Amino acid sequence: MSDVMKRWEAHRPGIDALRVEEVVRPEPAPGEVLVRVTAVSLNFRDLAMLEGSLGKWSGVQSPGSEMAGEVVAVGTGVTRFAIGDKVISVDIRHWIDGPAPEADTNTAPFLGRLAEYSTVPEDLLVRAPASLDAAAASTLSVAGLTAWFALVELAKVRAGETVVVQGTGGVALFAVQFAAAHGASVIVVSGSKRKLERVKALGATHGIDRSEIEDWDSHVLKLTGGRGADHVLEMGGGDITRSLNAIRVGGRISIIGLLNGSELRASITTIMFKRAQLVGLGVGHRRALQDMIAAIDHLKLQPVIDAVYSFDQVPEAFAHVKRGAFGKVVVRIER
Amino acid sequence: MSDVMKRWEAHRPGIDALRVEEVVRPEPAPGEVLVRVTAVSLNFRDLAMLEGSLGKWSGVQSPGSEMAGEVVAVGTGVTRFAIGDKVISVDIRHWIDGPAPEADTNTAPFLGRLAEYSTVPEDLLVRAPASLDAAAASTLSVAGLTAWFALVELAKVRAGETVVVQGTGGVALFAVQFAAAHGASVIVVSGSKRKLERVKALGATHGIDRSEIEDWDSHVLKLTGGRGADHVLEMGGGDITRSLNAIRVGGRISIIGLLNGSELRASITTIMFKRAQLVGLGVGHRRALQDMIAAIDHLKLQPVIDAVYSFDQVPEAFAHVKRGAFGKVVVRIER
Amino acid sequence: MSDVMKRWEAHRPGIDALRVEEVVRPEPAPGEVLVRVTAVSLNFRDLAMLEGSLGKWSGVQSPGSEMAGEVVAVGTGVTRFAIGDKVISVDIRHWIDGPAPEADTNTAPFLGRLAEYSTVPEDLLVRAPASLDAAAASTLSVAGLTAWFALVELAKVRAGETVVVQGTGGVALFAVQFAAAHGASVIVVSGSKRKLERVKALGATHGIDRSEIEDWDSHVLKLTGGRGADHVLEMGGGDITRSLNAIRVGGRISIIGLLNGSELRASITTIMFKRAQLVGLGVGHRRALQDMIAAIDHLKLQPVIDAVYSFDQVPEAFAHVKRGAFGKVVVRIER
Amino acid sequence: MSDVMKRWEAHRPGIDALRVEEVVRPEPAPGEVLVRVTAVSLNFRDLAMLEGSLGKWSGVQSPGSEMAGEVVAVGTGVTRFAIGDKVISVDIRHWIDGPAPEADTNTAPFLGRLAEYSTVPEDLLVRAPASLDAAAASTLSVAGLTAWFALVELAKVRAGETVVVQGTGGVALFAVQFAAAHGASVIVVSGSKRKLERVKALGATHGIDRSEIEDWDSHVLKLTGGRGADHVLEMGGGDITRSLNAIRVGGRISIIGLLNGSELRASITTIMFKRAQLVGLGVGHRRALQDMIAAIDHLKLQPVIDAVYSFDQVPEAFAHVKRGAFGKVVVRIER
Repeated sequence: MSDVMKRWEAHRPGIDALRVEEVVRPEPAPGEVLVRVTAVSLNFRDLAMLEGSLGKWSGVQSPGSEMAGEVVAVGTGVTRFAIGDKVISVDIRHWIDGPAPEADTNTAPFLGRLAEYSTVPEDLLVRAPASLDAAAASTLSVAGLTAWFALVELAKVRAGETVVVQGTGGVALFAVQFAAAHGASVIVVSGSKRKLERVKALGATHGIDRSEIEDWDSHVLKLTGGRGADHVLEMGGGDITRSLNAIRVGGRISIIGLLNGSELRASITTIMFKRAQLVGLGVGHRRALQDMIAAIDHLKLQPVIDAVYSFDQVPEAFAHVKRGAFGKVVVRIER
Repeated sequence: MSDVMKRWEAHRPGIDALRVEEVVRPEPAPGEVLVRVTAVSLNFRDLAMLEGSLGKWSGVQSPGSEMAGEVVAVGTGVTRFAIGDKVISVDIRHWIDGPAPEADTNTAPFLGRLAEYSTVPEDLLVRAPASLDAAAASTLSVAGLTAWFALVELAKVRAGETVVVQGTGGVALFAVQFAAAHGASVIVVSGSKRKLERVKALGATHGIDRSEIEDWDSHVLKLTGGRGADHVLEMGGGDITRSLNAIRVGGRISIIGLLNGSELRASITTIMFKRAQLVGLGVGHRRALQDMIAAIDHLKLQPVIDAVYSFDQVPEAFAHVKRGAFGKVVVRIER
Repeated sequence: MSDVMKRWEAHRPGIDALRVEEVVRPEPAPGEVLVRVTAVSLNFRDLAMLEGSLGKWSGVQSPGSEMAGEVVAVGTGVTRFAIGDKVISVDIRHWIDGPAPEADTNTAPFLGRLAEYSTVPEDLLVRAPASLDAAAASTLSVAGLTAWFALVELAKVRAGETVVVQGTGGVALFAVQFAAAHGASVIVVSGSKRKLERVKALGATHGIDRSEIEDWDSHVLKLTGGRGADHVLEMGGGDITRSLNAIRVGGRISIIGLLNGSELRASITTIMFKRAQLVGLGVGHRRALQDMIAAIDHLKLQPVIDAVYSFDQVPEAFAHVKRGAFGKVVVRIER
Repeated sequence: MSDVMKRWEAHRPGIDALRVEEVVRPEPAPGEVLVRVTAVSLNFRDLAMLEGSLGKWSGVQSPGSEMAGEVVAVGTGVTRFAIGDKVISVDIRHWIDGPAPEADTNTAPFLGRLAEYSTVPEDLLVRAPASLDAAAASTLSVAGLTAWFALVELAKVRAGETVVVQGTGGVALFAVQFAAAHGASVIVVSGSKRKLERVKALGATHGIDRSEIEDWDSHVLKLTGGRGADHVLEMGGGDITRSLNAIRVGGRISIIGLLNGSELRASITTIMFKRAQLVGLGVGHRRALQDMIAAIDHLKLQPVIDAVYSFDQVPEAFAHVKRGAFGKVVVRIER
């Protein structure tokens, strides 16, 4: 291996500030692994970091957080991986299993992985699924695990239940696939008739076109024979009255996004009489990620990727994230 | 038995409209039990019904819902009770166990039980605890069961956890007792130093005087070594920022009351990063009531009764509920 | 309706004692429903009752327990059903939801349903699935619900888990279908290569032919990469060493059958070090039956029926049960 | 610190082979902590190791596994502890939370801790409870955590339940204390009337003297009004018919010990009709240990110690374990 490598960097906020630099390839410290990065999946929060709207801007930023790769060297004391292992990154520090750690670190992504190589503590990696290529594998640790954690680990979705998914972003499409794989009926609410057609191919049972049917909650009640859905994946926030109306007595609303505003507002009597469960969450723990990977391998489930860009197209990839995607946007890094 | 009986009635809304009437004693229909009422516990919702602010006012209203009594006659087909059994009322129809029924009927109390006798479907009664007198037994089905359901049935409180209880009303005091009986640390937030002294005698570990320490959430963090409480019983509603601040990552807020306003408002990012669980609830199912009664008998737990009134003091009892009580207000009915 | 009807009866134990009799059609008592029986599914325990090896033999026995039918009359006080409703029977008395009742009545089947009509308390009926004909619907309440209860209600099976199913009887085939519908990997252990082919068409991932591979436990470990299965459905009993070997640390063995002997024998150190969960069970509660029916309707899942007999072929149907079936044996009753 | 220390060693199996040796004090490797040992609690398995009946005997053995101590030096990379911290040992490697690791390592104790100093990976330590001295703190990680894990973490014991505890060994006495602290009714079965008196002082509700009442299962049914206990802590193994008889329908038997034989034998029909849950277990995960420590500090719960020996009395301490103890046997190590 050469002792230099390429890495994307920005010396000021903004997509147009991104430049490829040659830097020294790092060495793995004790407990660390050197990973040759093979794919990086981009999330909204990577864009927000790059544009300076999430976290503090330091002098220079090397974006790239969620990745797939191959172990090319191991530091002393590493026991879980060997050279040649295919891996993907873990998104939350110090959360192996059970309740979340006292200080949840799910607030800022890792950095520096839009590069040819990256050093990673071995605790922050798991084996990649055998059934997926690098681009697909790179999409699992954030969007995939958030959907799995909400539906499977926490809500224990089962056949015959009804799940309402808002929108068609990365988390939403994984949610459609995971809920359908457990035999649940999935209702997707979206503003685009064309996207609703596509989610049906992924396993959604019904689509509600919000541009035509504003009171989607009434429509969910109709589709469920008046009973209401078991679970709504709330991506909007703001006034969640429609989500509360759409669930059954005792139903669950997973609070995952805040597209409609950063304050949640809801009627307390409805929450009490509906015995609603509102559960805030994000990415889950490492054991759930491993469970999900086993499921993906068994199900031969293919993540939805809107576009794959090459290493020299990173600015185009961020621009795609910015204008919105159907599923995930990935950068593939080939030697 | 004589075939007439006394019953309180109001021909227009208001405490001052209450009158004792002589009416025909009812007969139990098939599946029903005739109960000689021995005590009736008054709840805020009984007052709200009587004053016409909850539900529709009909021409005449006979208040009284939560009761203890003795079976004096059984209708055909009754299998669960025999004459002489001491019983207490069940508050929710058709909810034996498991998830709440599709149409939760927990919106309006039963009526007509501030009377010498009442007929009740046998499904809506359970055996009274052996260790309590009628006045104490009459307080369990609403306030007692709400506290038990939130803490024990749903949250499975355990020793070493920290529970924050807001206020010192009926549900709050049962919550203090049940949490302490499971070895939890209980922090009560109240505006009255005198009441805080009294809750310590019931098992509370700490009291926070809201009139002196407005930012009670910071104080909860201090008392828990920065970690936060496991569970807040939210009686206020409105802006729940302090409750969200006071819980640990992954903690629970049981939404039980709406003293501060009927809209719930909260930061979505805090809900997500705290992985908060907000759970709306009220009275629980019949199996939980039976579990709670078994616990009360074993623990020799005494409900907190602020005052016991006699049958001819019903207006005074409602007036006491109206001005606020430390624990429960009960009407005892002696022959 | 005529006031007589046909019913199968036996005046002494044995299939060959079965005779069709003309009897008075019953009237529904208060709380009961008169059901025109359209299909009866036969279970081993029906055969055991008929042959006098289960329960006490009375002078005359009218077999038939698990059924589908149509409501043709309702008694006073019936609220859950109306004339014309398609229904199936509930197998356990007084178990709506939650923990099993103190005296589990799951020890003897109901009787008298191999008849043109049967009266049933309304609590012991639920709506039939809309997607199944009478023959298929009649198979759900016992074999179907046992498999669902073990896998879904209790074990909360999820995608990527591995479930081992012993044999290809009624419960076993439902288990294959339900586990596969939740995305689990299913390994069936059977002595027949031909049956193993057929279970793969139902969704099984692997089959182990016990006649060739005696140490099926080692084979399960191999198929799971050494980890072991998450769940074994134990139909055999006796020495369960192989089942214990086949599960992962913390895995579950559902004790459902006793084909190999009525005593369970196992190494305690293996149970402790494997942290095994051994759970005895049978048919589940009514709420789970309703959940399962919703799932079947959504999944369009078709129960496996080995043969459908007409009402005059009841002895042939029992003989089929006696020699063993691949799935269920059903008697269809047409007017 | 001097660079030598004292450590107990045996060059052949047997208590009488124990000798104090002077050895070089170890240095903490990266990720390790050097602990000055202040107390060691002895368990049966330590005795079995020392006598050569558990695990393989190597040339020399230094006994001592469960300990309390104080951090006196930290290796590079240690983040969870600092010099001066009071700590206790964690008994199972690589099990922070959630399901047990695939290869449960709960089969052999650590070694070498009956010494003045011991080096320990930081993952295998937690903070000692603030409310206990070293001798008491040293008893928690094995016997204490086994009882807590069975009752609280897995079974979620609650007030009003009935727990049957067999015997008065270390796990049993912790079980009495933890169950009582959660408001449960505790029935202890023992062969000694004197010990039954002592367990009542710890919170047991009833004692059954097995030397007088052989059919203790019938007595448990009587004490629970015919319903049966919710949970039996099975220390005996062998034929567990009495434990199965003693539980309620749906009750739990925690398989913890094998004093009566290494094979478990039970009626399968009873397991099925009782819907029994038999759960094998031992020591639990680190998060549960931390929960238990928080509970102990809040409850001011004092472990039951039968005798404390000084460092030069280690053979006497092992002899005490061998003849049986009421609670724990501890060696205190003072400088």
